[in-house]
Amino acid sequence: MDTRVKVATAFDLAAWSAGHLNTVERALERWVTADAPAGVDHGAPAELVEAMRYAVLDGGKRLRPLLVMAAWEAVGPPPGSTGEDQRQAAVRAACAVELIHAYSLVHDDMPCMDNDVLRRGKSTVHVKFGEASALLAGDALQALAFELLTPDDAGISGERQARLCRLLARAAGSGGMAGGQAIDLASVGVALTESQLRDMHRLKTGALLQASVMMGAACGDASEMALSGLDRYGAAIGLAFQVVDDILDVTADSATLGKTAGKDATQDKPTYVSVLGLERSAAHAQELLAQALAALAQSGLPDTRALQGLANMVVNRCS
Amino acid sequence: MDTRVKVATAFDLAAWSAGHLNTVERALERWVTADAPAGVDHGAPAELVEAMRYAVLDGGKRLRPLLVMAAWEAVGPPPGSTGEDQRQAAVRAACAVELIHAYSLVHDDMPCMDNDVLRRGKSTVHVKFGEASALLAGDALQALAFELLTPDDAGISGERQARLCRLLARAAGSGGMAGGQAIDLASVGVALTESQLRDMHRLKTGALLQASVMMGAACGDASEMALSGLDRYGAAIGLAFQVVDDILDVTADSATLGKTAGKDATQDKPTYVSVLGLERSAAHAQELLAQALAALAQSGLPDTRALQGLANMVVNRCS
Repeated sequence: MDTRVKVATAFDLAAWSAGHLNTVERALERWVTADAPAGVDHGAPAELVEAMRYAVLDGGKRLRPLLVMAAWEAVGPPPGSTGEDQRQAAVRAACAVELIHAYSLVHDDMPCMDNDVLRRGKSTVHVKFGEASALLAGDALQALAFELLTPDDAGISGERQARLCRLLARAAGSGGMAGGQAIDLASVGVALTESQLRDMHRLKTGALLQASVMMGAACGDASEMALSGLDRYGAAIGLAFQVVDDILDVTADSATLGKTAGKDATQDKPTYVSVLGLERSAAHAQELLAQALAALAQSGLPDTRALQGLANMVVNRCS
Repeated sequence: MDTRVKVATAFDLAAWSAGHLNTVERALERWVTADAPAGVDHGAPAELVEAMRYAVLDGGKRLRPLLVMAAWEAVGPPPGSTGEDQRQAAVRAACAVELIHAYSLVHDDMPCMDNDVLRRGKSTVHVKFGEASALLAGDALQALAFELLTPDDAGISGERQARLCRLLARAAGSGGMAGGQAIDLASVGVALTESQLRDMHRLKTGALLQASVMMGAACGDASEMALSGLDRYGAAIGLAFQVVDDILDVTADSATLGKTAGKDATQDKPTYVSVLGLERSAAHAQELLAQALAALAQSGLPDTRALQGLANMVVNRCS
């Protein structure tokens, strides 16, 4: 007979995150490599992989991977199963979204885009490796994301692999992140309404954050009600993230952000702060947090504390 | 009673190609679009899609899509089936490899890479739309390739979708095309041995051509013997393509090529011609053609005439 007493404790997001971050970092370390996978003739050239590793490893808050893991855990493994194959899928999905995020930063920072020299407190990839290598490293990171999602030996069903690729491809492409970047590019010096700004950010940042949540859910077997709740949660925090990003671009300094602060105003880009002002932007972020938490409450999922904690972290972060 | 007489005729590659090219062009026209797919909130911004369409439509020999279709037809639909779901998969695979090819050309032509202004007889994408749009269009085309391979409503099994994504991701990434580009970039002004040159071209051009063949096969249910033969066929023509490309860069003019001729020598890039000389390069291309045809003969597949014709076209083309 098990005599251990189960003590209800407050959820410790930091401890929860630390465990998953460790897993994700080790997986990225292993997968962003020059080694050829089994059965494949050619490894990658070392210099390209060096640029890819520089872009991905040892940096970033890993918000997207944490959302994947939290959503998968909230859905939970099927009764009577350890869910080990699902956990494998979730770790791969977590790394895949981070690779897409990392590639987008590499290309974004290039001279023909934002022309930025500082990222995560380090020189940007093109400054360190040259523009051509940055371009290729970004391209290769995108391909690697889909390679990670389609292993031929990891016990993840083809159905699940395909679903993960579908979610990621839609979120990354012209109807998602790349489309949002294009709108962003076309919006310099243009006065946008709040609704136009929202649409831009939903694509540019929101789509991949929302996809992270939905990919986590796709690693388990979620009910329709759970999927619907998680989808609305993902949409709310996806937008909240960008509202807060716009606020921090004005209120924080470059050292805190690890990237150049005040760029939006310098580049005359429309932001939530320029459209709504600081105070209403901050209030809007809190509204979105409330929406995200309400969506979780309606999801029918028994334990969404990690997702709640991440939503809170997104809205109340300082960098 | 069917009284029609079946007349054995010589295989007409041009007629065979015309039919498939028509299908592929119409599919690309339909899929590279600003319309949001069903169930997705946001379409793509029109200006981004315009650059994507410019990069993809109405140009190119479509060699890779033809290889996909020819390999699928050689494997053939299962007995007693029309193979319609397989044909749908093959058309998607054909378009996906072409999107990857098209994106690689867009990025390749950019000033930080080859800095080329002419492609398929037209201004390159960055000349026409600007560098930032070219960068984003390439990125979005890569994502779209994986989106095309993972429809949620086309009757293609998850297993097959995942296998197609796996083949394409490996061929496109750091262990394939992007890796080959990186080696190419690092090889300017460097004397390579024939073996180093072969390794570079196997990744840079060969991987995607070989993947085209294997993706076509993956749309059917090929035997191990057939897959092995097709794999060797794909490797041989993948390399042959590049040998001939190197020859044409020296012997053809820009108008015939639709791109700038003589670039390799100008940029001091190692090529088959610079390593082996013109005559031995031409002989090597013929050897590779013989290898490709021998591999088909050993595949056990009953009708490989389209694949034979395409191999011949690759080696004996004038542009």
